[in-house]
Amino acid sequence: MASQIRISLDAMGGDHGPEVVLPGAEIALERRPDIRYALYGDEAKINEILAHHPKLKAVSEVHHCTVSVKMDDKPSQALRNGRYYSSMWRAIEAVKTGDADVAVSAGNTGALMAMSRFCLRTMANIERPAIAAIWPTLKGESIVLDMGATIGADAQQLIDYAILGGAMARALFGIKKPSVGLLNIGVEEVKGLEEVRTAGRLLREADLSSLSYAGFVEGDDLGKGTVDVVVTEGFSGNIALKAAEGTAKQISQYLRSAMSRSWVAKLGYLLAKRAFHQLREKMDPSKVNGGVFLGLNGVVIKSHGGTDAEGFASAVELAYGMVRNELLEKISQDLVFYHRSGFQDRIDNEKVESQKAGNQ
Amino acid sequence: MASQIRISLDAMGGDHGPEVVLPGAEIALERRPDIRYALYGDEAKINEILAHHPKLKAVSEVHHCTVSVKMDDKPSQALRNGRYYSSMWRAIEAVKTGDADVAVSAGNTGALMAMSRFCLRTMANIERPAIAAIWPTLKGESIVLDMGATIGADAQQLIDYAILGGAMARALFGIKKPSVGLLNIGVEEVKGLEEVRTAGRLLREADLSSLSYAGFVEGDDLGKGTVDVVVTEGFSGNIALKAAEGTAKQISQYLRSAMSRSWVAKLGYLLAKRAFHQLREKMDPSKVNGGVFLGLNGVVIKSHGGTDAEGFASAVELAYGMVRNELLEKISQDLVFYHRSGFQDRIDNEKVESQKAGNQ
Repeated sequence: MASQIRISLDAMGGDHGPEVVLPGAEIALERRPDIRYALYGDEAKINEILAHHPKLKAVSEVHHCTVSVKMDDKPSQALRNGRYYSSMWRAIEAVKTGDADVAVSAGNTGALMAMSRFCLRTMANIERPAIAAIWPTLKGESIVLDMGATIGADAQQLIDYAILGGAMARALFGIKKPSVGLLNIGVEEVKGLEEVRTAGRLLREADLSSLSYAGFVEGDDLGKGTVDVVVTEGFSGNIALKAAEGTAKQISQYLRSAMSRSWVAKLGYLLAKRAFHQLREKMDPSKVNGGVFLGLNGVVIKSHGGTDAEGFASAVELAYGMVRNELLEKISQDLVFYHRSGFQDRIDNEKVESQKAGNQ
Repeated sequence: MASQIRISLDAMGGDHGPEVVLPGAEIALERRPDIRYALYGDEAKINEILAHHPKLKAVSEVHHCTVSVKMDDKPSQALRNGRYYSSMWRAIEAVKTGDADVAVSAGNTGALMAMSRFCLRTMANIERPAIAAIWPTLKGESIVLDMGATIGADAQQLIDYAILGGAMARALFGIKKPSVGLLNIGVEEVKGLEEVRTAGRLLREADLSSLSYAGFVEGDDLGKGTVDVVVTEGFSGNIALKAAEGTAKQISQYLRSAMSRSWVAKLGYLLAKRAFHQLREKMDPSKVNGGVFLGLNGVVIKSHGGTDAEGFASAVELAYGMVRNELLEKISQDLVFYHRSGFQDRIDNEKVESQKAGNQ
């Protein structure tokens, strides 16, 4: 393990580009002095800001890029215009060449995923990458994936996500055998998707040493923190995440308006200000900013595009933690174990059996 | 239109059976004195409670049923044991025979949907029923469907849901041309499900007079109230609903613990108590209790199983409103228009075209 963690940053990514990325990088550096940065983007703009951040400047190398991926570029456009030359591409490429241990970008998710797949490729024995989010819960935090890297997932892909998420939980939370649940719906009549049930049965039978399969969980288990890792396909995962974010915003707006409606309420607010501050901290999305791209030959972290410097710093610290705690090594170990255990054979047999059954 | 609204109640449904159902029915009666009830369940138990509720007794007919569907019965079990004889079945059957205008049950969702389908059958030209929920938003309320009657939906079924939800919005909110959005994910790379895109294109082209198609919406638009009706298939709909409910509970728990942490916070809480009360009212699930089964030859309302009398009263009032505002008639009109408009032909052509394309 390198004593320093080398992080490549897409300095142009996000709604505010280097004006948020660089101050955010400096905040993270204060907390993790063993970070070294490779900054990709418009050299003139970056150097102008670095002039005000001497500590950051001292640990950064600037690499000039002529192209920036726009926040509303479609992935195909981004690949066409930005491959090889954009700040986003080059930050990812630094991970491929070994110049960086991990890349962080606040650029658009679709473009970042398309470039990451193209540049880093998916790991052997993993069909598709996934985006994992960190979900604040009543018990602390959980990992939820896939948040929308792809739509739909068969049983095999759900099992891949379970393994990827389990490895991330070990890296992030330091738990030896994280609990993993499959997101499902509890309406008895429909009994859940066929692929979710198959994945559940196979995970239970496999009895993996790297994770503890905890069965099905429902949408309200996300906030409860019932399990360490929640696995679902990308469409429902993305919708669950945004529905929860929307509800949190909605309630904080209700609260604000209720607390300003009378002078007594305002006085109450002043007295309880510290308590409200704690509440806001809990609900603050910048505290858990950062989606982790899993299943690629390298780690890429996606920061919220509209985040502030504090939020970007969280994403950088997440990147730091993923390298420090050997996320990729953990995933590789788990995949090796999983294939040696004959688990894959069982799934293949399962597929053949169900095809036979379907043909009868 | 009958001057009185006749409501059949599954008196045994829900976690607390007649002890919640009957007091709830009385609360609704106070607000809507033109309700008449048909109560299905254990006659002895019902009469014992009615003795304490003379006003309710005066407007109710009691029908003895020997069987009650359990909250954890699977739909198949419920149908096997409870068809023809259970309080749930007979409350639904009263709608079929015309003895009641609408049925309300707090019994288990899967069983209630299975029995409703079996007894009432789906409307002509509707393939599948849907469960519609009322979602509290920053602007008021929206209708969201399907909440899990079935999993997955093709373009045709999504369009059916749009028509059903649009008619319900006209009945519930009194809007002439409600706005309808299709739930989708905004990650550009994946661009959303094929069937969601097809449904969107066809709805735009159809330019229906009964609803205004507003395009795609995302998970966070649910809480914002961006559109009057949000359409999605049942798996993601159910997960979105439960994720939002879970987040609301999570935040109220954070809030409670923050407000009791110090005596200053407690004092602030006391002063702002009214504001908190308003907030709780807004977040109170019993205020918007009731899922509406749409697409059947009759209206059935599902109340939360764990609700209190106030919540059950909300479900009864919702049932009342759906009959008073002629939900079924509105749906029938919209379906007639939609088929006359040649819209169905376009979808059929579309299917043939895409099959051709698939075969090439």
